[in-house]
Amino acid sequence: MALQSLTQLVLALVAAAAVGIVSVIFVLTWVFSYKEGLAWDGGLAEFNWHPVLIVVGFIFLQGIAVVVYRLPWTWQCSKLMMKFIHAGLNLLAFIFAVISLVAVFDFHNAAKIPNMYSLHSWLGLVAVILYCLQLVLGVGMFLIPATPVSWRAAFMPLHAYSGLLLFTSVIAVALMGITEKLIFGLSNPKYKDSPPEAVFVNILGVLLVVFGALILWIATRPSWKRPNDQPLNTPHTNGGGEDNSKVNLSMSGGADADTCSDVRRRNNKAEDQTEG
Amino acid sequence: MALQSLTQLVLALVAAAAVGIVSVIFVLTWVFSYKEGLAWDGGLAEFNWHPVLIVVGFIFLQGIAVVVYRLPWTWQCSKLMMKFIHAGLNLLAFIFAVISLVAVFDFHNAAKIPNMYSLHSWLGLVAVILYCLQLVLGVGMFLIPATPVSWRAAFMPLHAYSGLLLFTSVIAVALMGITEKLIFGLSNPKYKDSPPEAVFVNILGVLLVVFGALILWIATRPSWKRPNDQPLNTPHTNGGGEDNSKVNLSMSGGADADTCSDVRRRNNKAEDQTEG
Repeated sequence: MALQSLTQLVLALVAAAAVGIVSVIFVLTWVFSYKEGLAWDGGLAEFNWHPVLIVVGFIFLQGIAVVVYRLPWTWQCSKLMMKFIHAGLNLLAFIFAVISLVAVFDFHNAAKIPNMYSLHSWLGLVAVILYCLQLVLGVGMFLIPATPVSWRAAFMPLHAYSGLLLFTSVIAVALMGITEKLIFGLSNPKYKDSPPEAVFVNILGVLLVVFGALILWIATRPSWKRPNDQPLNTPHTNGGGEDNSKVNLSMSGGADADTCSDVRRRNNKAEDQTEG
Repeated sequence: MALQSLTQLVLALVAAAAVGIVSVIFVLTWVFSYKEGLAWDGGLAEFNWHPVLIVVGFIFLQGIAVVVYRLPWTWQCSKLMMKFIHAGLNLLAFIFAVISLVAVFDFHNAAKIPNMYSLHSWLGLVAVILYCLQLVLGVGMFLIPATPVSWRAAFMPLHAYSGLLLFTSVIAVALMGITEKLIFGLSNPKYKDSPPEAVFVNILGVLLVVFGALILWIATRPSWKRPNDQPLNTPHTNGGGEDNSKVNLSMSGGADADTCSDVRRRNNKAEDQTEG
């Protein structure tokens, strides 16, 4: 990869991380400064775990998981290790999402509010179920050694598409959740009177969209793929394998790079070509 | 393109069209069977133009515009003509969106409801403004003959990414709008009591997500590109130019195919390679 492209990738990653971290700070500020804080008491403070865990886990951690193969400082590390990190981050995001659902069901039941009536709840539950399916199929296809390479190659386009679609859908569902919470949670002044909390949480919604847009941009630039994931039959006109190694070595530390390269050489198999 | 892949593309297009048309039927049924119908009177019937024009124009027409280069029966037609159809559909979608905004501002002003306080309104307005920018830049880059081919090639990845991001964002904003309208518009029984209208409009929301998912799938399969838009330097291992011509000729009628081929030969220039 040309140095200019690598610099742009790092800048995009830094921007995404920054927007993601600011989103996490926003959701925590919302809950602690404007709302009832966090507790597990069946009340509003328990409900508040819902937006916190969704933003921290189902959006921020999932976003990092989506682009984890595109962190240049990991390109010396083994593909297998990166797969475990990708799967681990997604598993963590899934656990956060499930706990956030438990919090909201608990709160609804205690307050005698019906469950699963809104479009937000329908799409949110479908997203969590499909995310679980994606996780199980992903592990079965790409981490179980017995799975044929041809199956992996055939499944990869669907896996990559579903991953981006689920990530995008989760953000869309979160925006609906913000809308619901600001309408139901604000009274005197109401949402339509634009109190500071309404403006603050609207900005959180905008931040989530920007975070999503950055992650999608990073994840869909073909030239920003992990070098060895780029199809072997593509002519390396600008920046082939050799150039990549040089850039990578100059970016990662000596000892670390050596360890990673060793592992990588063992894992640098045909299956690596299937990554979308 | 292999015949099997072509069949899958046609099936996906038919599925997207079907879901899109059912969505349009759903929004019209909502407005006419559950709500006040359509009028331009400053009242609720004027507001109803907002969801109707968004679903028909900003979602359905925009979705068709996104995949218009991937309709196999147009592959014999000139690229320039398809560009005009792509731009025309997007312009029509933009006009629908603008009128839908006028309807909602009119309704708010007549009812003394504040404008632009919700996250839905913020993201919706930003989407319309960026869509306008995308339209102007798209025409400037790809329809003005003086624009250098190198500029077109450099801009195309951004144009394609922005197009898909805007299409996705519009659906997300529509889902927020549905949420708002069902909360504000339903009382006795309320949204949380799941009256038939709530379930019906939730299903509309699900249909919009399925429509979006189908359009995104069709638009992001590299093998479903217009044959001559596929990079020239890629080896045509299975299904190159010759195969494509055969399939195309067998799919379009005789006279029509001839006219289209003639025009196409004149337009089959280097710029055609830049389509993302």
